[in-house]
Amino acid sequence: MDRLAIHTITTKAWDLPTAAAKYSSVGVRGMGVWRQWLEGRPLTESRRILDDHGISAVSLVRGGFFPYLNESEKQAAIADNLRALDEAAAIGAPQVVLVCGAKTDLPLGESRRHIEEGIASCLEHARDCGVKLAIEPLHPMYADCRSAVNTLGQANDILDRLGCPPEIGIAADVYHLWWDPNLSSEIARAGHRIIGFHVCDWLTPTNDFLNDRGLMGEGCIDIKGIRQQVEATGFQDWIEVEIFSNRWWSQDPDAYLQSILKAYSQHV
Amino acid sequence: MDRLAIHTITTKAWDLPTAAAKYSSVGVRGMGVWRQWLEGRPLTESRRILDDHGISAVSLVRGGFFPYLNESEKQAAIADNLRALDEAAAIGAPQVVLVCGAKTDLPLGESRRHIEEGIASCLEHARDCGVKLAIEPLHPMYADCRSAVNTLGQANDILDRLGCPPEIGIAADVYHLWWDPNLSSEIARAGHRIIGFHVCDWLTPTNDFLNDRGLMGEGCIDIKGIRQQVEATGFQDWIEVEIFSNRWWSQDPDAYLQSILKAYSQHV
Repeated sequence: MDRLAIHTITTKAWDLPTAAAKYSSVGVRGMGVWRQWLEGRPLTESRRILDDHGISAVSLVRGGFFPYLNESEKQAAIADNLRALDEAAAIGAPQVVLVCGAKTDLPLGESRRHIEEGIASCLEHARDCGVKLAIEPLHPMYADCRSAVNTLGQANDILDRLGCPPEIGIAADVYHLWWDPNLSSEIARAGHRIIGFHVCDWLTPTNDFLNDRGLMGEGCIDIKGIRQQVEATGFQDWIEVEIFSNRWWSQDPDAYLQSILKAYSQHV
Repeated sequence: MDRLAIHTITTKAWDLPTAAAKYSSVGVRGMGVWRQWLEGRPLTESRRILDDHGISAVSLVRGGFFPYLNESEKQAAIADNLRALDEAAAIGAPQVVLVCGAKTDLPLGESRRHIEEGIASCLEHARDCGVKLAIEPLHPMYADCRSAVNTLGQANDILDRLGCPPEIGIAADVYHLWWDPNLSSEIARAGHRIIGFHVCDWLTPTNDFLNDRGLMGEGCIDIKGIRQQVEATGFQDWIEVEIFSNRWWSQDPDAYLQSILKAYSQHV
């Protein structure tokens, strides 16, 4: 339980103060903070809310979306990522999770080049902020418009090409990676690059491309097996529950929080 | 146009005699025959229908579904694949396309072992029939229950491990493969193993996991670019249009056939 963190999007009904209070009341000490949850109040106040409840911001979600059609889009993307790094630093989050982006109007290879360049452009500011960039490979079904980084191997390749700067790590989400025939070898290859571990489950059937994730244990992902491999690299950091689910979002959020605790203890 | 083939599922409203007559009337000479289209008449009669319209069966769709939970499921799967080979031989189709299968109740690695064993079990009969088995890697979003073979690299690995018998090839479908960062190198590695090339397009957004494929040109897949790479291996066989689409199925099928011809000439 010491390592359990929950993403604010998971319990979408709750704003930041409510989520902090609710998580704290059941002994959850880590929060993956989505940027929308920071809107409407000074960052210092968000930080105080977390501190007051003994909650650590374990990640800021999300930066990325680097591919661009023109120079102004390019500059806007970089500027937004620099802001995300500032926000992360302000609330004490050690990493910004990157949903790297993709554009249907660009050749896939071009989106991939933009992503690599974009990440490189943020390194200096990341170093200055003391915040890492966590590349999150997204499931191939999101390659059209959400992320052109679709395997752990590809994230490892990007890190190799950029010279493995300490400012970049990888967020490994079982939902995106579980199907990969090279998963074991790429986890081993990633080693200490893995700085985030996200859990949920894959439902059969899945009825929505975005918002039909399962609670751990509801689906077919071998979460314990993947966790074991990730921890064999030395990873001992937070385990982040990140679930988008119209079904769960329609339930009573307090009961859902209890279900998350139970699923975490049984299936992670 | 000489190389254009259409899968019967694409023009789902038409039974075998109607599809043969309609395809023939617009100069399409190849048909990917789904097994349901053979039901209700002797195979010799299906063969005669195709012959009478100057149509070649370019593939029989589909065998596979090898993973099993018990011995009787295992034997049933093998028996069904041997029957598919017989059917293909009877209608003159040179290959059976394999949707390899997956079971949510099995560890993914176990499904993968069953697939490899299952394919190996069919080799002798394939040789006797003079029909090839075409492994079709399916998009990772189908890894839970349709196919645990999800990349071209994985199909290449299976072929390597089985010793590259001439009875096995690969059906490369752009819908399943377009996102893969290793696609170019795996196509080159596959070389003459590629014996089938299927086209359609990926829509943004995609609203259904199965039946929301696009007509070529409607989506983001670089079909011409992938075709060029496949043909650089020496592939000069049929190009098969395989589209599952509730949207297109609800249109007038004659007008849809014209749209297919136009999309093929412009975007393939």
